[in-house]
Amino acid sequence: LTEIRVSPAIGVFDSGFGGLTVLAALIRKLPTAHYSFIGDTARLPYGSKSRRTIARYAAQSARFLVEEQGADYLVIACNTASALALDDIKEAVSVPVLGVIEPGAAAARAASSSGDVLVIATDATVQSHAYKAACAAHDLRAFEKACPLLVPLVEEGWTNSHVTDEVIRIYLNELATDAAAGGLNADALVLGCTHYPLLRPLIERAVPAGMRVIDSAESTADSAALLIGGRATIDAKRPPSQTKACATLFAQSIQLNCFATDSVEKFERLGSRFLGRPTGPVQLVDLGG
Amino acid sequence: LTEIRVSPAIGVFDSGFGGLTVLAALIRKLPTAHYSFIGDTARLPYGSKSRRTIARYAAQSARFLVEEQGADYLVIACNTASALALDDIKEAVSVPVLGVIEPGAAAARAASSSGDVLVIATDATVQSHAYKAACAAHDLRAFEKACPLLVPLVEEGWTNSHVTDEVIRIYLNELATDAAAGGLNADALVLGCTHYPLLRPLIERAVPAGMRVIDSAESTADSAALLIGGRATIDAKRPPSQTKACATLFAQSIQLNCFATDSVEKFERLGSRFLGRPTGPVQLVDLGG
Repeated sequence: LTEIRVSPAIGVFDSGFGGLTVLAALIRKLPTAHYSFIGDTARLPYGSKSRRTIARYAAQSARFLVEEQGADYLVIACNTASALALDDIKEAVSVPVLGVIEPGAAAARAASSSGDVLVIATDATVQSHAYKAACAAHDLRAFEKACPLLVPLVEEGWTNSHVTDEVIRIYLNELATDAAAGGLNADALVLGCTHYPLLRPLIERAVPAGMRVIDSAESTADSAALLIGGRATIDAKRPPSQTKACATLFAQSIQLNCFATDSVEKFERLGSRFLGRPTGPVQLVDLGG
Repeated sequence: LTEIRVSPAIGVFDSGFGGLTVLAALIRKLPTAHYSFIGDTARLPYGSKSRRTIARYAAQSARFLVEEQGADYLVIACNTASALALDDIKEAVSVPVLGVIEPGAAAARAASSSGDVLVIATDATVQSHAYKAACAAHDLRAFEKACPLLVPLVEEGWTNSHVTDEVIRIYLNELATDAAAGGLNADALVLGCTHYPLLRPLIERAVPAGMRVIDSAESTADSAALLIGGRATIDAKRPPSQTKACATLFAQSIQLNCFATDSVEKFERLGSRFLGRPTGPVQLVDLGG
């Protein structure tokens, strides 16, 4: 008897909950895949930590998804880990690994006419200049800025607060001033952190007219569909939402197991805000940290 | 030949840099002690994590200070670890352990006439109700509130920003409304997180006239001096700042070794803001996480 796997197993990793926005986009593109998601919540946030530490933590989660959950593909749904540890993760596992930086840069290329783009992200992502490098490979000039307060504001649930409006205004004004001083004529803004899509309405209001706001979750899901869909079976090739009835059927039958390294209650409570649906029961995992 | 130790070795622990405000107060009270400070910066912040995880992390740092640095006493200069893991730390090591919660409650007792006090702290500290219990033991009623944005605002350096003023105003208004609804007539506010002393001027401006603001760093250092000074030698008993010349001498000869589990550069850069003097070279430590 030979077992035939009809749908791919996709492991998705983030330091916390933010990567669930990428998982939501993946589910829309590849609804029949089996998903395992791990949030390394015991050690978040990664954005203020060093490359060495981030690489060690991310490799542990990657191995968990491949060796213990049987993932055939890994999606690193965390900008910080993608920026600083993608090579370490690829070394740690033997399956294809996709990050969020390259798809974000590709989306910026498609959106920008001037060839100049802005990127907002965590401290660690900005200091790595991973977006600058990925954009340069697409003939784009990128100007990056760290916005460390945006993640805590999202986690506090202040996604519709005048305080958050003001913080965004301050950050974007500083960014615009510095980018203009650097001679850039930017017409696109990349949200280089998976928490930021929850602030998208506030950010859209704060940017100048005509500036495109780019969320790498969608473009990452597109890249994943291209990578995985090409190798997967008939099931996965079926267009995901031909009809509403079909989409509903998919929504009901999502194969998803969520894991966290800390407080599963908090994950279950906050995770649905990012995923746009209940996460289901979350299992606690000890990665030895 | 018998070696006689003329001054005690004090280990001080925090999840990050905030505990350096407690270390600064300790140095003023016990200037001749030998200090080892560890900040578990690879895994901060603790304030949003679960009791189980905090206890495991804190015990690792405590063992490092006692077993590898030879500390005779431990001061847990972190409200979250004191609130959730003091018993676990005491079990992990064989030396006297002092937290910041009980000294904070004692200071609140001394400051309050009405017997009702307010406490602001991290999520984890508030959920533990450690301050409520410690205050109750002093016949105080305490009303606690989590203020998760204050730590990131301090770490971003926005300690003199109108945004921080507004966030403090929002938190304190909510706290006052809830405390009044609970029938409290509070006349003191405890800063239940070692980051908050850096916001003290803003908090002083935001509280009603007559409300005392209490920083547990000073009262923790008093408790430590009582505990350690009583057992230490002539050197440590000498009043720390009899004369200015003497104080300067002490300042020059502080025995301090700082350790961090992540980015020593960041520790050296930010740490001096909390310590009020340069931290000196910081050594990287791997606690296995």
